Amino acid sequence: MIERIAILGTGLLGTSLGLALRAAGFKGSIVGWNRSADGGREALAVGAIDLVASDAIELARESDVTVLCVPIYSTLDYMEQLARELTPDQLVTDVGSTKAQITAAAGRLFNTAERAAFLPGHPMAGKERGGASLGEASLFRGAVWLFTDEAEWQRSAHGTELVADWRELVAAIGSKAIDLDAQRHDELVAWVSHLPQFTATALSALLEDQVGDAPELKHVGGRALREMTRLGASPFSMWRDIAHTNTAAIEAALHALEQRLAYIRENLRTPALREEFERANAFRRD
Amino acid sequence: MIERIAILGTGLLGTSLGLALRAAGFKGSIVGWNRSADGGREALAVGAIDLVASDAIELARESDVTVLCVPIYSTLDYMEQLARELTPDQLVTDVGSTKAQITAAAGRLFNTAERAAFLPGHPMAGKERGGASLGEASLFRGAVWLFTDEAEWQRSAHGTELVADWRELVAAIGSKAIDLDAQRHDELVAWVSHLPQFTATALSALLEDQVGDAPELKHVGGRALREMTRLGASPFSMWRDIAHTNTAAIEAALHALEQRLAYIRENLRTPALREEFERANAFRRD
Repeated sequence: MIERIAILGTGLLGTSLGLALRAAGFKGSIVGWNRSADGGREALAVGAIDLVASDAIELARESDVTVLCVPIYSTLDYMEQLARELTPDQLVTDVGSTKAQITAAAGRLFNTAERAAFLPGHPMAGKERGGASLGEASLFRGAVWLFTDEAEWQRSAHGTELVADWRELVAAIGSKAIDLDAQRHDELVAWVSHLPQFTATALSALLEDQVGDAPELKHVGGRALREMTRLGASPFSMWRDIAHTNTAAIEAALHALEQRLAYIRENLRTPALREEFERANAFRRD
Repeated sequence: MIERIAILGTGLLGTSLGLALRAAGFKGSIVGWNRSADGGREALAVGAIDLVASDAIELARESDVTVLCVPIYSTLDYMEQLARELTPDQLVTDVGSTKAQITAAAGRLFNTAERAAFLPGHPMAGKERGGASLGEASLFRGAVWLFTDEAEWQRSAHGTELVADWRELVAAIGSKAIDLDAQRHDELVAWVSHLPQFTATALSALLEDQVGDAPELKHVGGRALREMTRLGASPFSMWRDIAHTNTAAIEAALHALEQRLAYIRENLRTPALREEFERANAFRRD
């Protein structure tokens, strides 16, 4: 039975998670910590958490479940610290966008009968800007929540129960769980999440060079251009750790898109262009 | 005074234009023609036009203004025919997405004291799917309407008046006119309209190859992926003439994006990635 949840990092995801758990009827306490005090106070003010604490480790020590909602390298740092502090009747989970390193750390540091349990998770939800003020109870509704749990982990009985309970809460806030291997996860999100982001960044940066000094022309593109560059507003701080921890898969995806664009460029007047449009149409059909 | 407007081609743009003119209080008659009879009947049924005719040229002959809402090569064909049929007290205008060839034809075939007037136009509005059934009176509201009028054209006095009247109607339906040179137009839209489209097509076609056989994974990307691939649904029929009539500018834009993606790929772990994100952020700032 989960009675107390600690959210470490009350940015967009952490704040939304607190709001979503409350909206879904979670009756226990939700406590929070944030690197900047302002973000913590804001999460408290909107009702995402019941109290904001100054010591993240102490907060985790007193909670059944700790959810790490911080960047990937911070997540790895907290995992090292929490593995020494927590007990087999506690669960740690996370929302990190790449899973190979975090899942490897989870196997090394957690998930034995003597250690706390760790469930690596990744909700496919977010916005192009972060911060507690943008938090929404509905952020995870209809989203996929990926888990990269490993079959060979030998958790304590209590840890196993907490994992099942957390999965129930994820379903209660409207997300659909999909389980997959951590390596496969990182390859998949390189295609369906990281490639779209870096494409929008490249397109936006290029257009800033081309028409950035003529604001009236930036608006000529209308809705299509706005959509294709919306992710261009994403801050580097949200993507640096992703680029560092999924480099090879992102490189492969970017290289494939470069080749696809070159193919279209070389075939603007040949029948191959029709085939490319039809292939793209197929992606949007179902 | 414009009393009768003929819309040749009652697809998405033609139908929306009829609806928008009515909604803006245009009191004259609006008549239509469409290549397929179904599309014409649909435009009639939704009130975009007052009657649907079977002969496009005859319809134009009886109208003050003829608006060509057909693909670019069809527009060029109709221009040849209409130049012989119409008189200096008539205006032809269009909504074609590339303007160099159409503007050259307008100078060659129209815009003398003895010929009808032609005003090359391009509303920056549309959807990723066409057809009368998707027509909307509000489609042009807040959109930019580009004109590539040329200062040296010597129109009849009546033709000049009709041009001014048509520009007033464009303002009345909520569009903001911007005048620019036809060559500059085609270069500009290669960046802000054609590049985003071909990027979405390339990304969608690539992802169809990568994850198209795993429908459950296609939905993992969420809103960001949906937005970045929405234009992937655009039919080839809407883009073929654009690719053929603006090839060099589109090639240059695609090549520049390939290079930008390669630069990002080579710098996923260097400080240059931050600069690319900041440059992209700047594009979205104002």
